[in-house]
Amino acid sequence: MHNGINQQWCLTSRPQGLIKESDFEWREETLPVPGDGELLVRIVYLSLDPAVRGWVMDVKSYMPPVALGEVMRGIALGVVEQSNHPKFKVGDLVQGLLGWQTYALSDGTGLARLPKDGVPDLTAYLGLLSMVGPTAYFGLLDVGKPEAGDTLVVSAAAGAVGSIVGQIGKIKGCRVVGIAGSDEKCRWITETLGFDAAVNYKTEDVRGQLKTHCPQGIDIFFDNVGGAILDTVLTLINVKARIVICGLISQYNAQKPVPGPFHFSSILTQRVRVQGFVIGDYLDRIQEAVADLGKWLVQGKIQYRVHVVEGLEKAPQAINMLFDGSNKGKLMVKVSDPDGS
Amino acid sequence: MHNGINQQWCLTSRPQGLIKESDFEWREETLPVPGDGELLVRIVYLSLDPAVRGWVMDVKSYMPPVALGEVMRGIALGVVEQSNHPKFKVGDLVQGLLGWQTYALSDGTGLARLPKDGVPDLTAYLGLLSMVGPTAYFGLLDVGKPEAGDTLVVSAAAGAVGSIVGQIGKIKGCRVVGIAGSDEKCRWITETLGFDAAVNYKTEDVRGQLKTHCPQGIDIFFDNVGGAILDTVLTLINVKARIVICGLISQYNAQKPVPGPFHFSSILTQRVRVQGFVIGDYLDRIQEAVADLGKWLVQGKIQYRVHVVEGLEKAPQAINMLFDGSNKGKLMVKVSDPDGS
Repeated sequence: MHNGINQQWCLTSRPQGLIKESDFEWREETLPVPGDGELLVRIVYLSLDPAVRGWVMDVKSYMPPVALGEVMRGIALGVVEQSNHPKFKVGDLVQGLLGWQTYALSDGTGLARLPKDGVPDLTAYLGLLSMVGPTAYFGLLDVGKPEAGDTLVVSAAAGAVGSIVGQIGKIKGCRVVGIAGSDEKCRWITETLGFDAAVNYKTEDVRGQLKTHCPQGIDIFFDNVGGAILDTVLTLINVKARIVICGLISQYNAQKPVPGPFHFSSILTQRVRVQGFVIGDYLDRIQEAVADLGKWLVQGKIQYRVHVVEGLEKAPQAINMLFDGSNKGKLMVKVSDPDGS
Repeated sequence: MHNGINQQWCLTSRPQGLIKESDFEWREETLPVPGDGELLVRIVYLSLDPAVRGWVMDVKSYMPPVALGEVMRGIALGVVEQSNHPKFKVGDLVQGLLGWQTYALSDGTGLARLPKDGVPDLTAYLGLLSMVGPTAYFGLLDVGKPEAGDTLVVSAAAGAVGSIVGQIGKIKGCRVVGIAGSDEKCRWITETLGFDAAVNYKTEDVRGQLKTHCPQGIDIFFDNVGGAILDTVLTLINVKARIVICGLISQYNAQKPVPGPFHFSSILTQRVRVQGFVIGDYLDRIQEAVADLGKWLVQGKIQYRVHVVEGLEKAPQAINMLFDGSNKGKLMVKVSDPDGS
């Protein structure tokens, strides 16, 4: 299928505001040949995540920015087509930072081999097991420290991470209230996923609704959004509450400095713990999460949904669905067929 | 000395901006007579603390606001002059929320008896042992969790709490950098207290100086101030750093909403833990702190200084010294002589 060609999106300028296709250049190169200790991966699914918006900015963060001219960074899953690497063989299913391209040459660094059996289909990896689910799992359990009876509020609650956070919260005996951006999303998280309540932040009075749905106040806020929603939650936060800062998607496209929450002083008066969380700090513990998530999936206690966009060429446009909320479920690009067609 | 009269400052209006004497009314009442289970305390020293600015505002906090018409709330130390209470006898030294007055009637609730021996003079209690020192002790050790070799930055570093925090940091093997508001204060914390470096935030480039004095970045920030200084520290904060929010004095007199830090996103990217801290949560553990602080005081490892204003009538004016930084050491009002004159 490849005709000896690798197709790539390379970053050529630092986006201002929303990512534009013109921030990238489409390149086609001769398919590289793996040398000693190298392997060639055909990419099947490319993950699109809010964190990508941070990786293209030239600022200090938990990873260096993508350099101009480089293939765009992205987590992807693929199949090994050629290997001169002792640990990987042809046909292996692998995942790593393989980039926005149809093929990736790798020396195996940071590459994880995934089992091919035991999942409903390959989207279960990017959709739940390999990154999104562990993010929800460690962020909520290790940082949020839920106890039965706690009230847990989740922002971007119908998103890939938020939807899993809420379901784990229910498993742990919390009252769970989700904040999402459409009535359809609110119905999905309450009627299908079992959240106790949902607030549509685009049409409803968020503070009033949270007050109604959290009669005992808020013990844990799992935040993917930041901005006005975080500020509102701070006005209803309980003594000794925990706020997990997993994402600040409301400000990723900002073109000028964004103020922190105006109710920052609640952190002092309520003795709140606010803690930043990045899944990269838990890579050596991923299997703990996968074991529980896999069990809950089989038991029907956790559901997920995926939003698959067809074709690598659509990646730069598709990423913005995360920022206008038009995706429904974990966003990914299907780069090639799982069976190799 | 009392002539049968109790003198009091009562709160009569909610201050806008700085506290004004006209927000209070000076009252003189007949000295109350303790009933069954009550005692009468002659106040010797009244503590003036930044937290007072919060207590007079009608907002949700860790204590209800002082009601209009009530005697102003304040921590004070005094001597029992009459007692019908089984646990307290005439001559006992006691401390509690006795208020801005010359005498206080108490039923013993929240009142602690202090030993009269073993301290250089009574100012050692308000100056170190009874509130300020334990605040520094638990805030730094229990929330900040210092390890030897960590870089600790302290704001309001020549203040009552900050000066103790830095000295405990040195005892625990940290590199300690203080931020203060005058060259005299900067000299005091480095030359006398042994801080490694000091930054005068009124005359120096805070970020540039912190960068110079914290070549390994900042692992712990003990913050009494908030605002621009917190924002600057967030740009230099290390991965997994701890920020202890002990006070936000820069905004206590604000008359409109104050934005949180513009570099809030560092909490996410650096996986920082930001935690609010109030000494009231540690009242059952105060003796742990007093034991260590007393030992360090005797060993000459900890020093403190006090700023004593004479006369209860000066309390409303004196409190603002905390906000313009003109006090040098723990601010307190001498209400009567320790020996009862």
